[in-house]
Amino acid sequence: MVQATAMPRNESGIETAVGILKQRFGDRLQTGAAIREQHGHTTTWIENQSPDAVVFPRSTEEVSEIVKTCAAHKVPVIPFGTGTSLEGHVNAPAGGVSIDLSQMNKVLAVNASDLDCVVQPGVTREDLNTHLRDQGLFFPIDPGANASLGGMAATRASGTNAVRYGTMKDNILSLEAVMPDGQIIRTGQRAKKSSAGYDLTRLLIGAEGTLGVITEITLRLQGIPEAISSARCSFSTVDTACQAVMMTIQYGIPVARIELLDEMSVRAANAYSGLNLPETPLLLLEFHGSETGAAEQAATFGQIAEEFGGTDFASTTTTEERNKLWQARHDMYWACLQLRPGARGISTDVCVPISRLAECVTAAQDKAEELGLLAPIVGHVGDGNFHTLLLIDMDNADEVAKADQFVGWLNDLAISMEGTCTGEHGIGQGKRPYLVKELGAATDYMVAIKAALDPNNIMNPGKIL
Amino acid sequence: MVQATAMPRNESGIETAVGILKQRFGDRLQTGAAIREQHGHTTTWIENQSPDAVVFPRSTEEVSEIVKTCAAHKVPVIPFGTGTSLEGHVNAPAGGVSIDLSQMNKVLAVNASDLDCVVQPGVTREDLNTHLRDQGLFFPIDPGANASLGGMAATRASGTNAVRYGTMKDNILSLEAVMPDGQIIRTGQRAKKSSAGYDLTRLLIGAEGTLGVITEITLRLQGIPEAISSARCSFSTVDTACQAVMMTIQYGIPVARIELLDEMSVRAANAYSGLNLPETPLLLLEFHGSETGAAEQAATFGQIAEEFGGTDFASTTTTEERNKLWQARHDMYWACLQLRPGARGISTDVCVPISRLAECVTAAQDKAEELGLLAPIVGHVGDGNFHTLLLIDMDNADEVAKADQFVGWLNDLAISMEGTCTGEHGIGQGKRPYLVKELGAATDYMVAIKAALDPNNIMNPGKIL
Repeated sequence: MVQATAMPRNESGIETAVGILKQRFGDRLQTGAAIREQHGHTTTWIENQSPDAVVFPRSTEEVSEIVKTCAAHKVPVIPFGTGTSLEGHVNAPAGGVSIDLSQMNKVLAVNASDLDCVVQPGVTREDLNTHLRDQGLFFPIDPGANASLGGMAATRASGTNAVRYGTMKDNILSLEAVMPDGQIIRTGQRAKKSSAGYDLTRLLIGAEGTLGVITEITLRLQGIPEAISSARCSFSTVDTACQAVMMTIQYGIPVARIELLDEMSVRAANAYSGLNLPETPLLLLEFHGSETGAAEQAATFGQIAEEFGGTDFASTTTTEERNKLWQARHDMYWACLQLRPGARGISTDVCVPISRLAECVTAAQDKAEELGLLAPIVGHVGDGNFHTLLLIDMDNADEVAKADQFVGWLNDLAISMEGTCTGEHGIGQGKRPYLVKELGAATDYMVAIKAALDPNNIMNPGKIL
Repeated sequence: MVQATAMPRNESGIETAVGILKQRFGDRLQTGAAIREQHGHTTTWIENQSPDAVVFPRSTEEVSEIVKTCAAHKVPVIPFGTGTSLEGHVNAPAGGVSIDLSQMNKVLAVNASDLDCVVQPGVTREDLNTHLRDQGLFFPIDPGANASLGGMAATRASGTNAVRYGTMKDNILSLEAVMPDGQIIRTGQRAKKSSAGYDLTRLLIGAEGTLGVITEITLRLQGIPEAISSARCSFSTVDTACQAVMMTIQYGIPVARIELLDEMSVRAANAYSGLNLPETPLLLLEFHGSETGAAEQAATFGQIAEEFGGTDFASTTTTEERNKLWQARHDMYWACLQLRPGARGISTDVCVPISRLAECVTAAQDKAEELGLLAPIVGHVGDGNFHTLLLIDMDNADEVAKADQFVGWLNDLAISMEGTCTGEHGIGQGKRPYLVKELGAATDYMVAIKAALDPNNIMNPGKIL
């Protein structure tokens, strides 16, 4: 494990606040070691820093009460969704109270005629989509994991559908939040657009719980398309696959998904998901539209793929076949881990302008090979975003050092290409040094905003800044 | 004219700063009455509050120098684009220096393969689209006026194409800005998405120059669609026209534009633009896509329109006919003024969830009639946004009072319908009381952010908050 920086603990404050909250919430406040550890960071290579207590509120008013109690005693508050974040977002480096929002899991309203809905933060994306299906609606953002919508908002998540539908920032109309002083605010109305004052909605999206706790989310919805078709196509090199992606985007084909698996990932998928794909770089696509529209998109893509030497192009509109392919894509994390049983998976998350994508992916492959690291690559390549999953033996210090070197090198490369060190995972604890490299003086004003809204630094301290 | 609140002037600071800047910028700093007045508010009914000087920088460094000088002497800075805003955004209630960005009008880069470009803030949207046309690209946001892109970013502008392409907030990848202390920052990279820290890009978009001066904008571009077709359709009532809009949106037809003109507006358009449209409520539409896609969209809309009693449905793909219709739409402001020569036009800007649109528009018509006000309505109805243009004799105090009553009543109604008092014009000076009605306690945190980033309140003071 990589050490996460510990911060000074306010022991007496924590003791007092936890005591008050225990009195108030009874069994809905837990202090057992197992549950505390489960609410610290549990994935990839950052060490676990458990909170002192975990509390399970059922309403916004309860969240406000918890935050007010913690604010009064200057005790850290860490919002917790499902714990699937990858950069140590839910760690408690200064201890404090984890607010587990899983019991705030109601869909409060579906306004079908406005194509929006209002949910509590503990609703997961799969639950929401199950809830919506009968009404012919869906929420498109899909980060892979069955994350909570509150967590997805807090980390500005995206995933496979973002190339067409945008990220969380594009699909939230407004938020309700409990601010660091415990006050409840609503950042906007339900209108589709507004020029009313500072965009607090977008400020809280991606703030990773450092400026407030999201307690309600008004989401934009989409009608389930009349037709959905999938396609896959194999390429001889990652470079030609990326060239095909670039051309597809430049042609303006409104692909709903366009995902890259490099040869190592395809091998992993074949083994794990019982597929029989050619073991060369692969693009997986999905098209949404009318019957003719989706077919037209697939055909145009087929022509582009051919130009770049794409082979085994196969398009399908049957749900079963489509689901099998996408299930395999969603299982890639587990499939890749099987390439090296016992290894930890450490995921990078760079995103570059699409014109630099082929160059960046190829350089990442070469660098991993040079360092002798096993590192399959998958990517939301329509946005220029890809993940190298480093498979690391955490007991091998040399290997860990090489992984660390790789991560830093790739982040620097992406930044030098006018890209970002994080397309969708967020900064958390893990990427703080890179944020400053990437945005320089702009981070001064982030610090100023944080200090203004949370002067005692109680909201998820030690993250982002 | 309606009085705008004056603020205390820092006379000695202004004198000193203007003196220093005059020394530095020579003829590029102007203090003549005419030019100063032209840089105060010039439209609708808010009185003109001229700045003390107007300076014309040519680079980001020069803007930084100006802001640093003003900051050192606590002198207001008012960024100025083309002066087409409607809510007093460029007024100088405490005097100070207007920074006219019209000489920063270069397109710095067009990255065709990434579908983005980098522009200085003084580039107007028409200039940009002329520049892009040869490369088969366009920038979709169209607020009607040939506004500067810096001004459009600062007010979170949108307009006719927003129903498909979103608003300025959705079409900006990153900004360069001079902050209130004169420091130059870049809010993001050129990657299509990012989870790197607080979204300062979106914070500055719509901040109306109160948090910094935008000096460079990286914009998302679109490929010019293969096919563009227009359609128009007449309805017997505003209610049925709005019902057709609601159904069109709910069907997921990706209309590029869907505009409402009420009967009075159609009459104005016929007279001003030499058209011969039936003088009943009208929808004007535009479809973008492939040849078959655009035709399919138009046909589906035609069926929907028929359901709601739409008549005279006419679809066209000829550029000339299309341009004539849209030119008439863009000229609506002038056309409506001709309904009552000598009157001032006062535009409302409410935006409501689309399910409430028919009700809201109809109520606005009824209320105007009840008050005896001449008030044609046009709207970007696909977003639930419409403008009532009150035609007012400003010398008639009773009429001005009624207009004021109407504006307040409509803003309150929209807010009660979970809508906003401003879909796209911004708060400026004119809508400040409504911002608090609409967002309540959330405005406390806007005040805190403003105080943190601009402790001396020099950036466009008296606006928004």
